[in-house]
Amino acid sequence: MQIEPQAFDRVLSSMCTEPHPVAREAAERFLATNPGDPGTYPTVSALEDEAIERLGEIAGLDEPAGYVASGGTEANVQAVRIARERADSSRPNVVMPESGHFSFRKAADVLGVELRIVPTDDRHRATVEAVRATVDDDTALVIGVAGTTEYGRVDPIPELGEIARSVDAMFHVDAAWGGFVLPFTDYEWHFGHAPVDTMSIDPHKMGQAAVPAGGLLVRSPELLDELAVDTPYLESTSQATLTGTRSGAGVASAVAAMDELWPAGYRRQYVRSQNNAEWLADALKKRGYAVVEPSLPLVAADVDRGTFEALRAKGWRLSRTAADELRIVCMPHVTRTMLASFVGDLDRLEVRASVPVASDD
Amino acid sequence: MQIEPQAFDRVLSSMCTEPHPVAREAAERFLATNPGDPGTYPTVSALEDEAIERLGEIAGLDEPAGYVASGGTEANVQAVRIARERADSSRPNVVMPESGHFSFRKAADVLGVELRIVPTDDRHRATVEAVRATVDDDTALVIGVAGTTEYGRVDPIPELGEIARSVDAMFHVDAAWGGFVLPFTDYEWHFGHAPVDTMSIDPHKMGQAAVPAGGLLVRSPELLDELAVDTPYLESTSQATLTGTRSGAGVASAVAAMDELWPAGYRRQYVRSQNNAEWLADALKKRGYAVVEPSLPLVAADVDRGTFEALRAKGWRLSRTAADELRIVCMPHVTRTMLASFVGDLDRLEVRASVPVASDD
Repeated sequence: MQIEPQAFDRVLSSMCTEPHPVAREAAERFLATNPGDPGTYPTVSALEDEAIERLGEIAGLDEPAGYVASGGTEANVQAVRIARERADSSRPNVVMPESGHFSFRKAADVLGVELRIVPTDDRHRATVEAVRATVDDDTALVIGVAGTTEYGRVDPIPELGEIARSVDAMFHVDAAWGGFVLPFTDYEWHFGHAPVDTMSIDPHKMGQAAVPAGGLLVRSPELLDELAVDTPYLESTSQATLTGTRSGAGVASAVAAMDELWPAGYRRQYVRSQNNAEWLADALKKRGYAVVEPSLPLVAADVDRGTFEALRAKGWRLSRTAADELRIVCMPHVTRTMLASFVGDLDRLEVRASVPVASDD
Repeated sequence: MQIEPQAFDRVLSSMCTEPHPVAREAAERFLATNPGDPGTYPTVSALEDEAIERLGEIAGLDEPAGYVASGGTEANVQAVRIARERADSSRPNVVMPESGHFSFRKAADVLGVELRIVPTDDRHRATVEAVRATVDDDTALVIGVAGTTEYGRVDPIPELGEIARSVDAMFHVDAAWGGFVLPFTDYEWHFGHAPVDTMSIDPHKMGQAAVPAGGLLVRSPELLDELAVDTPYLESTSQATLTGTRSGAGVASAVAAMDELWPAGYRRQYVRSQNNAEWLADALKKRGYAVVEPSLPLVAADVDRGTFEALRAKGWRLSRTAADELRIVCMPHVTRTMLASFVGDLDRLEVRASVPVASDD
């Protein structure tokens, strides 16, 4: 089978990236292992414990529990599932801002819970008062996002945590994308900053591990016991997952990446990515686009759909927000040269659009 | 990070194996791709279509629909979810033989459906009359297993399918492990043999692909639409999954393996594995153990727990059935030499056990 995947040099809207070389090497070394079967594969199972330790360090949790999931979607679904199991109500609801990831809609559908979606403010962040007005005694879970999918925004995590506490609901922070850049900012987002119960934080996004390597962290191990099936307590953390067989490549690559890059390498990457995002935002503003200022390395701008499709026709891998803006995620593989090339193509399209086309009529 | 995984040369109870070299190479080539984002990764998304085509060919389905899942657990959970969505009853139940995989218990817990477990017969197969007596008008799904986890048994698939039809329930066949060996037997197990609606069939087990590569096949595309969230029809098959980001490595390795090995390579492997299982069964019977005759390449025998633990202490990766038998799965990496070495160690332990130990008292 001689097919090649496309290169990364035109991928601008993905929250995944090329795995770091040490992560790739670890993935290949552990390709034929299964942490879902700790008895057969004890080495990679021990590596998973180490991955959780390191994720806990990043997320401000001294005695972390959790596991390496297939991705942020599984982590988010499982967080909702834990909350459902602990809910007092027979009709539990989950409250989240509209910027919450699609995986929470999937979770509500799969798990049979009501999802209450609260509008964000004009800066695309959760509106604290609206969340406060939406929770009630049946609320099992409040969700805050630390690095939203469309705009890279950080919700007011401590305030949302207090609202959850006020109605005896759990509080989940989705830091699937943001978790590996936020440590280098002034945002309050993690277990040390707020009454967070569960968190998604994905090594295979900004963590530069290989797919699949998502992360579910929980404040204490008995929260994971809620995921046990048929028994009151987990016999093994690996039974808690939504899968059976799991990828040792993902687990090993997560440990290798964090071993190599935390904290200095991730800090350097954050600075580079944030600088790139700000450079791009400036470049687009100069050209007359309305730009959502990047709080994290993600830029949205009102580039019209015609230009957007023309850029895609040139090979750029792009996606748009629900409000129909262009959305660029400055992942580690995104270089200043790539962005300059992108802006150059944008300029050429704009020139072409403004030059009258000779008519054949 | 210089840790190495243990070698495969002592792994005897895993349903996973070393990926075939072409599968490993494809996995490495597509490591940094995500079929959960077809717009950004069109090449690997097209490969997934091809994987489903080939799985359909193996499973007797002319116009297959489905997707490459994280594993058999996700495929089984999603099959139950499809049945739940289509059920007329407000209290749907799922009927399965006790040999059904743990993932169906997980599915029932996650999805909030009742699971009715029917005892197997003395040959560890589903008891048709007991299943018939257990289904009722609330039954949404009947499950048959083609290659059970503990004994490698094949249920009477056509009869179970008829029972499902008789109560307007769906019929799911779990061929996660068996699907890549059954084509070379006389068993009736697939879409061409019975009114099968959905099937699990995992390339990363006997298919010799890299983890993660499970498979969910459905008889017609509208069954997948039941997995859509918020919309009546799927906009993209990739929305149907239980995950978000997915492993392109798994998808590419599945296509590469099937391209290389179907059908002749898989046939040769089945013959080799079945011969190994029968050799092992004979060797154990000669030594006085009660052996469950292998219908497929899986051997169970009443090796006592003390001997079992001593074998594990020698480095053999082994597991036991719920009835406390030793369970050996003759996967592609399991060679006659490995089995002979295993039996040799067993013999040495038996000798030691029968020689009186000089006492220190």
